[in-house]
Amino acid sequence: MADARDGRQRLAEALTRVVARGGISGVSVRAVASEAGVSGGTVQHYFPTRAAMIRYAMEWISDRVEQRLSGVARWGEVREWTRQILLELLPLDEQRQREHAVWLAFVAHAGTDTSLADLRRRTNVKLHELYARIVRARRSLPPAAAPTADAADADVAQDALLLQAMLDGLSLRLTEMPLVEAQRRGPELLDRYLELAVDISTSA
Amino acid sequence: MADARDGRQRLAEALTRVVARGGISGVSVRAVASEAGVSGGTVQHYFPTRAAMIRYAMEWISDRVEQRLSGVARWGEVREWTRQILLELLPLDEQRQREHAVWLAFVAHAGTDTSLADLRRRTNVKLHELYARIVRARRSLPPAAAPTADAADADVAQDALLLQAMLDGLSLRLTEMPLVEAQRRGPELLDRYLELAVDISTSA
Repeated sequence: MADARDGRQRLAEALTRVVARGGISGVSVRAVASEAGVSGGTVQHYFPTRAAMIRYAMEWISDRVEQRLSGVARWGEVREWTRQILLELLPLDEQRQREHAVWLAFVAHAGTDTSLADLRRRTNVKLHELYARIVRARRSLPPAAAPTADAADADVAQDALLLQAMLDGLSLRLTEMPLVEAQRRGPELLDRYLELAVDISTSA
Repeated sequence: MADARDGRQRLAEALTRVVARGGISGVSVRAVASEAGVSGGTVQHYFPTRAAMIRYAMEWISDRVEQRLSGVARWGEVREWTRQILLELLPLDEQRQREHAVWLAFVAHAGTDTSLADLRRRTNVKLHELYARIVRARRSLPPAAAPTADAADADVAQDALLLQAMLDGLSLRLTEMPLVEAQRRGPELLDRYLELAVDISTSA
């Protein structure tokens, strides 16, 4: 079992390198086999179809991001740990820039593959919950939403969606910059956004 | 000359339909020829390479968006015409949803093709100027930036980049929603963002 998982992971990793280099178009059983240094038969043993292979690689990146997020300490100064989580979501080092480029290729491809669209949707739901928690925490609102949503809840839901959109949009902009510029401007832009649109007193 | 342009445009249109259906992976001389109802030789007459064809189609969409934007009247109530321009940039009808999906596929692909990355960069620069003008107009700041940038100019540049990121991120979210939901939530989310982060008094 563990071997099968390792094998699949190694192939998923090879697949993301193929996508980083040549986009989704470059993905084939042969290309992934050659990148991983195994035979085409081995690839087909783990993944019966190209679509299954792409889906697994997309899940693998999504899991890796989640793991990284769960590694951020969530105690101490609220503004500090929430900021650390958001910074972790931006492509501010080479690995995350590559991951973002590959994720974007997957997302663009998901428009034409309904099973990927589902995975994308589930990832978005999880992230939306995270963003809502961050908005609540930074506004010192109680963590759980009441069953009867009030005006403050509606604001949080909307502002969490805006925060999510901002992180996606910023990621797009930052991957277009040289890494050193992204590392300088990313935190600046995030802080400006938090100041303008998140750290505000709410009208209940 | 006009015929050659018409021929290229017809092929670019066919190419975007191919991308909308199957992503960039689906693009080939044969697929575009079959979609356009012409021979492979005709496609190759206009576009010597697959890359040239993709590049032309990306430019064609970029031009179409620009044309649509220049069609929005820029007079009357500032908050109203600037809002109309921003709404025009969101995927709030079927054509713009399809255009956005295709553009996203192009952008994801641009990571692996430097000539596309240039086009993407030029489009971003033009859009950034538009967003900066909108931020200035909504804050009643004078239109042209002084050669010596002051604190207000720095804020405008940063907030224009945030606005651009927000439009990109919102577009991603909205294309994931059923169209009727996107049409309801898109303007709501945009108005909320303008209220929070654009229509603010600036510290000069």
